[in-house]
Amino acid sequence: MLTVSQAIAAILAEVQPLHPVRVPLADALGLVLAEPAIAQLDSPPFDKALMDGFAVRSADLPEGRATLRVIEEVMAGQVPRRALAAGEATRIMTGAPVPAGADCVVQVEHTRLVPGAGPIEVAIETGGVKPGKNLLKRGASTAEGECVLPAGRMLRPQELGALAELGSASVAVIGRPRVAVLATGDELVSLESQPGPGQIRNSNETMLVAQLRQMGVTPVPLGIARDNAADLRERISAGLTHDVLLLSGGVSAGQLDLVPSVLADLGVRQVFHKVRLKPGQPLWFGVYDRPKSIPHWVPPVTETRGASRCHVFGLPGNPVSSMVCTELFARRALRQLMGITPVEPAPVRARLTCEHFNHGNRPTYHPAALEWTQAGAVVAPVPWIGSADLSATVCANAMALFSDADRHYRAGEMVDVFLW
Amino acid sequence: MLTVSQAIAAILAEVQPLHPVRVPLADALGLVLAEPAIAQLDSPPFDKALMDGFAVRSADLPEGRATLRVIEEVMAGQVPRRALAAGEATRIMTGAPVPAGADCVVQVEHTRLVPGAGPIEVAIETGGVKPGKNLLKRGASTAEGECVLPAGRMLRPQELGALAELGSASVAVIGRPRVAVLATGDELVSLESQPGPGQIRNSNETMLVAQLRQMGVTPVPLGIARDNAADLRERISAGLTHDVLLLSGGVSAGQLDLVPSVLADLGVRQVFHKVRLKPGQPLWFGVYDRPKSIPHWVPPVTETRGASRCHVFGLPGNPVSSMVCTELFARRALRQLMGITPVEPAPVRARLTCEHFNHGNRPTYHPAALEWTQAGAVVAPVPWIGSADLSATVCANAMALFSDADRHYRAGEMVDVFLW
Repeated sequence: MLTVSQAIAAILAEVQPLHPVRVPLADALGLVLAEPAIAQLDSPPFDKALMDGFAVRSADLPEGRATLRVIEEVMAGQVPRRALAAGEATRIMTGAPVPAGADCVVQVEHTRLVPGAGPIEVAIETGGVKPGKNLLKRGASTAEGECVLPAGRMLRPQELGALAELGSASVAVIGRPRVAVLATGDELVSLESQPGPGQIRNSNETMLVAQLRQMGVTPVPLGIARDNAADLRERISAGLTHDVLLLSGGVSAGQLDLVPSVLADLGVRQVFHKVRLKPGQPLWFGVYDRPKSIPHWVPPVTETRGASRCHVFGLPGNPVSSMVCTELFARRALRQLMGITPVEPAPVRARLTCEHFNHGNRPTYHPAALEWTQAGAVVAPVPWIGSADLSATVCANAMALFSDADRHYRAGEMVDVFLW
Repeated sequence: MLTVSQAIAAILAEVQPLHPVRVPLADALGLVLAEPAIAQLDSPPFDKALMDGFAVRSADLPEGRATLRVIEEVMAGQVPRRALAAGEATRIMTGAPVPAGADCVVQVEHTRLVPGAGPIEVAIETGGVKPGKNLLKRGASTAEGECVLPAGRMLRPQELGALAELGSASVAVIGRPRVAVLATGDELVSLESQPGPGQIRNSNETMLVAQLRQMGVTPVPLGIARDNAADLRERISAGLTHDVLLLSGGVSAGQLDLVPSVLADLGVRQVFHKVRLKPGQPLWFGVYDRPKSIPHWVPPVTETRGASRCHVFGLPGNPVSSMVCTELFARRALRQLMGITPVEPAPVRARLTCEHFNHGNRPTYHPAALEWTQAGAVVAPVPWIGSADLSATVCANAMALFSDADRHYRAGEMVDVFLW
């Protein structure tokens, strides 16, 4: 049986980043740049006033004071028509272009208009001025042609703002994966139904869809497939048109665990079945390369999107197993599909606040509460009765890894913790 | 002029959590429960097999071995029709209800069907069985009537899964704020346009909308208002029908900074104007209580939503000022509107990797790169030429607070850092 790291390596070996697509900036949050972003403009695009006040020549104010003739007024969005000569000033607003000849801006608070019938004059009294004071030179932040962002950069609000300012209204990014979610099992009923005897609600769909949303991918819930080959075949086929298919249930050793055989019938190549961990041992993973004749879902805004592979995770049906396998395995595949680095987020090393016995023969990813203290990260495993016990996880914000089977961990030991 | 903490206190004093609304579970990610969630069912709803195998009476296997008569087969979703008597076993699948009389499940791996013409028999050989082995008793995880989640709990994937399993298909939560974004300024052009002389692109809308998305609220971009009272009046009026209005630009001391006077004309009560920080000093904040006659936007799924107040932030127009003020001030107001606790996320204490001089007379929130090392958190301020220099922030993942004005910070000093 594969170890967790062997399974992750086997998954990542099968996953290529999705092909680039061009999307409007407003749709690019959380996606990764597919090509370097080059500044189309200087920033600022002109010498720009950073304060409301008067654009002046610093040489006119050797001791920080003078009375100057006001020759013009420039608002943001306007353009100065006149260059400053000696003894002249231009009234200016924050964000407006500074006129030629001026080399600094004096804040309005240090100025006073001089009353009189002749030309408008301004009296300036300030501690001193230096060239460059209160203005930003054209291109000081970024020069036209400069690389604003390299390819591979994930787009957060500030990157989107910088692209809006300097680049274009759309951007080439690695696509956002569409991930189908299909629960299997005769015992499942929809959320709206009251479960009858022997039945439970399809809570995995709700949970998995929320996990996928948090990861920034597009979840596509496909409902419930019943435990018979015909229904599984039909619904799994629909799932295979997506970039990833998360199945839950039907992968353990039960008589009705038909999922692996239906997947094989449909041409999905098994990469592995079963991983040495708790919870989640029955995990199944395989890939399906769509024949050219099967149309692939095409996003509304696209230049090219050639990915024709569906990555199929057969998650164990118990909710905590589903959740843990999605975090540990599917999340890494999704990050690689999206071009996000690092693919494997580093664990947090944290100190156990209490002793813990790891029963059984497998490494355990135990729901746990991680807390940051002045003395560093501390972690407490939450009471948990196994893979069906989802209500334990609501007290947890992380998984603590107890990698040694059947071992007593002492309070104060350091363990690896993975944040949820 | 208010300090940052005085300004935050003044904001929070004006903000009440939004009224509860009932939404489908699928729409509740990131929202806060408005009432305790009580389990409508036991979990599991029956004594449930955790393994594929045979349900048995542990008394029948005193030394872990026996040959038993198989009386029935129960799949997940089915219900056992017969109780076990001495010497009997029921074949059972993971997730299926365990029959009355059985007190444990033996994994299929430890069993072997006995060939023969008579009644089906199973030979069991295991190290030993204990009552309760491989089954989960009805209600062991959660009992009907138990509080699954208290009011005030934020809903993550695991909470949604637990509610799907135990509660109902919809849930009463504190509403998701709708936040209007309106940029002001004659110098602004839309993203699609090439800026002419003196013009810049409206990058703030793109950036603010992305920041709001990350905070889990619903952004409503309203475009650009020009620097004249009529246009401002019309567009600000539209903004006031939302829970929050983020204006950018028009709040400093310039002649065309009409925003505060238009807001006053429209009946928005100013709470403060200007805060002692860099960047972002011109920040304006006020509130508008809608008269009953003005219809408030009503979400599609709602029982009650009575909030009739719009919280108005006049953000300074320079992009880094807008970004920092949204993070420091608007984010806290939004968390309080959504009922998220704590409203003020704790800063990370981090060690400066290099010396830094904080020029000027105000506390500075400086774009910075925070990194977690084995020795704890370390932070480096990124090169930054001021509030118009958005491209500096793409190298940053945080703001480092240099609270002392005009002071030299040494490498190795500890400072407060706020993650972006």
